[in-house]
Amino acid sequence: MTTLDAVLSKVDADLDRSLERLFAFLRIQSISTDPAFGEQCRVAADYVARDLADIGFATSVRPTAGHPVVVGAAENGAGPRVLFYGHYDVQPVDPLDLWETPPFEPRIASLPGGRKIIVARGACDDKGQVMTFVEACRAFKSVTGGLPLGIKVIIEGEEECGSKNLPAFIAANAPDLKADVALVCDTNMWNAQTPAITTSLRGLVYEEVAIRAADRDLHSGLFGGAAQNPIRVLAKIIAAIHDDNGRITIPGFYDGVQELPAEVRRQWEALGLSAEQFLGQIGLRIPAGEKDRLLIEQLSSRPTCDVNGILGGYTGEGSKTVIPAVSSAKISFRLVGGQNPDKIRDAFRAFVRARLPADCTAQFINHTGAPAIALDWDMPALQAARRALAAEWGRDAALIGSGASIPIVADFKRVLGMDTLLIGFGLDDDRIHSPNEKYDLTSFHHGIRSWVRVLAALA
Amino acid sequence: MTTLDAVLSKVDADLDRSLERLFAFLRIQSISTDPAFGEQCRVAADYVARDLADIGFATSVRPTAGHPVVVGAAENGAGPRVLFYGHYDVQPVDPLDLWETPPFEPRIASLPGGRKIIVARGACDDKGQVMTFVEACRAFKSVTGGLPLGIKVIIEGEEECGSKNLPAFIAANAPDLKADVALVCDTNMWNAQTPAITTSLRGLVYEEVAIRAADRDLHSGLFGGAAQNPIRVLAKIIAAIHDDNGRITIPGFYDGVQELPAEVRRQWEALGLSAEQFLGQIGLRIPAGEKDRLLIEQLSSRPTCDVNGILGGYTGEGSKTVIPAVSSAKISFRLVGGQNPDKIRDAFRAFVRARLPADCTAQFINHTGAPAIALDWDMPALQAARRALAAEWGRDAALIGSGASIPIVADFKRVLGMDTLLIGFGLDDDRIHSPNEKYDLTSFHHGIRSWVRVLAALA
Repeated sequence: MTTLDAVLSKVDADLDRSLERLFAFLRIQSISTDPAFGEQCRVAADYVARDLADIGFATSVRPTAGHPVVVGAAENGAGPRVLFYGHYDVQPVDPLDLWETPPFEPRIASLPGGRKIIVARGACDDKGQVMTFVEACRAFKSVTGGLPLGIKVIIEGEEECGSKNLPAFIAANAPDLKADVALVCDTNMWNAQTPAITTSLRGLVYEEVAIRAADRDLHSGLFGGAAQNPIRVLAKIIAAIHDDNGRITIPGFYDGVQELPAEVRRQWEALGLSAEQFLGQIGLRIPAGEKDRLLIEQLSSRPTCDVNGILGGYTGEGSKTVIPAVSSAKISFRLVGGQNPDKIRDAFRAFVRARLPADCTAQFINHTGAPAIALDWDMPALQAARRALAAEWGRDAALIGSGASIPIVADFKRVLGMDTLLIGFGLDDDRIHSPNEKYDLTSFHHGIRSWVRVLAALA
Repeated sequence: MTTLDAVLSKVDADLDRSLERLFAFLRIQSISTDPAFGEQCRVAADYVARDLADIGFATSVRPTAGHPVVVGAAENGAGPRVLFYGHYDVQPVDPLDLWETPPFEPRIASLPGGRKIIVARGACDDKGQVMTFVEACRAFKSVTGGLPLGIKVIIEGEEECGSKNLPAFIAANAPDLKADVALVCDTNMWNAQTPAITTSLRGLVYEEVAIRAADRDLHSGLFGGAAQNPIRVLAKIIAAIHDDNGRITIPGFYDGVQELPAEVRRQWEALGLSAEQFLGQIGLRIPAGEKDRLLIEQLSSRPTCDVNGILGGYTGEGSKTVIPAVSSAKISFRLVGGQNPDKIRDAFRAFVRARLPADCTAQFINHTGAPAIALDWDMPALQAARRALAAEWGRDAALIGSGASIPIVADFKRVLGMDTLLIGFGLDDDRIHSPNEKYDLTSFHHGIRSWVRVLAALA
């Protein structure tokens, strides 16, 4: 039996204990965006640090202006080194009443057809994914007494609220983090049978805008028709962002956006992603993006704008005849190619201001901004990882673009000069950020085994 | 000395005692919306009934599913009869710390410039206004031993919480309430020197709409660009309701809306309401309604649409990259002239459905619907009241439209077949519903005298 086979067998034999450790992690209510859960974020950081220390990592929980960052290192002579990144924080759980069981009480359930799933907030994003890597390291340590190559780890606690403090942290701790390549487990497979490596990520600009009209809430009978209504102003602005073909109308928005290289387009067309398949799972059937683009382009290689939240006036039960003084929205943009986050932000703000009635004002909050990134498909580490994944899953890994944004990947490139391999085992139906988030037991199990193979291949 | 002069002199001589009676009424904490004050509402009803009985009314305090209604009647042979409506309940007093003195300890104060005011919760709305009528009746009774015409009175206790039980009460007690014309003292003067009769009230259709897209909340990175966003759909619908000139685009919306009669337009133009004057008080300066209409038309004779509330997605602190499954809005229409509430509701719903992407749905809640009310300016009772007010104030009464809705007036018309004269002595700076509510002593004194003249004129 080769060492690799022995480690894989250990993974199989230890699966129940791996699940117990994941469940303990999932019970921690580490919602980073809500200050009420600050202490729980600290508890999650300590949990991760202790777990890594058990495997032999030198670990520390390092403070930031927000939630702490866990850093670990296990050196292995002069050979290649990798940096693994993940996050211990999770999304809020509202609307709580849509959860079938409490979000922080993880459980195993079965889907119709027999797929076993782990259900909890963070089951996939990102606690389950992080633990695939940690458990792979543990199996190596258990079987061989060490790790196959030098591994550094950084697990942050602010990914779900914009990673505000991470860029400065990386710059300040560069010597502890620098490696040959970064590994991230926060993305999806192509489908339940086909692994994937994400070679491009969209960037993100996330703005909040508050429109103010009168200096107080007004009675809509006494003032309606004469007083400006900030909800109406905001709706007009939001409605103007997209034209009838789904194209974004903000001047300069598409500066730096390129057409797909021919090879990528060929592979993506071959993947044959249909609206029925992709949108059918969420109860939709008509792609809402640019009408002259493939669905897969709309999702990964084209920039987008979404309103993530809107609020104004009376929103309780029943009716109230009020014209509110203020209405606000959270609006985000996914960026691709060479789009510049700062320019996009400025263009959006100018677009809003150009549509403001003279006696209204707009206030903005910058929640985050990060450019898009893309890997060279000929990179050796990428080729090695492809072979490792193919060996585990019996199918070639799809090289795909993700519509999501992982700003840290841009920082790794900019600050540490590292490319990043994004290898994750999430599935499209994992309900991340939604009630009843889940992670397939197969994703967890074969995710651990995949990392064993990838680490061996990179060593 | 004529009888009228004798009654007016009695009003002047008795003003201090009239104030004492008003103050006793104002000390009762009859906050109708708060169950903690239920007993105080009963106390207020009893107070009114006893006071009316002292003047010779046959009175009763009648139960409803909520707070009781006071009904009084003083017949006067076969001559004309009026029904006076008012309410003994008041608004809550929060925020209490903004009151300069306790809200239920009425006092006389002076404004800079010398205007004397009565300060208390209810000083204007509606206890002070109700007592102008009651004190006028008392003066007639004291001087002549009776009233100049048949008078019925209905004083309810749920006006500030929606008058939920009143329509059924009116229908069930129609014989006790039917008269030739209804009188209501719950509106304002044009300004401190100019009396007013409100001759039109806008109607109201209040709808709630919820737009649903996907069957769950989605991650805006993974689905953004392909999945329909219900906030965007809702914003497009709201944005489409008004054109660039502020005109409502819903097909058929203006059916039944008439141009102002020339006499009304002349009088309204003469009132010279300016945006600086009306909007300046709330921090605005540009009328937001139909651009080709006078400000006073936008406010009272033109129909409007306002979004009273909007909600969707993540609205807490910070950011969340979600595409919500649902977004909703509360949208109301103020109606005028012959606009039919049911047709407006249907037209709005059709307007929404016509703009729905094929895989989105809309759900509606009907919160309320009432037609507009408008008096015929040639109505004899209106002419008589105008002359009476002009005699008291030395200026013609302005005949104005109110943008607000007073559903009881529609019920009087529909159930009892009566028109209503809305004559009140409130001023725009009375702070009704707010801390430090006041009523000018002049409003109270000349309000009583005005009712003496109006009753004499109607007799």
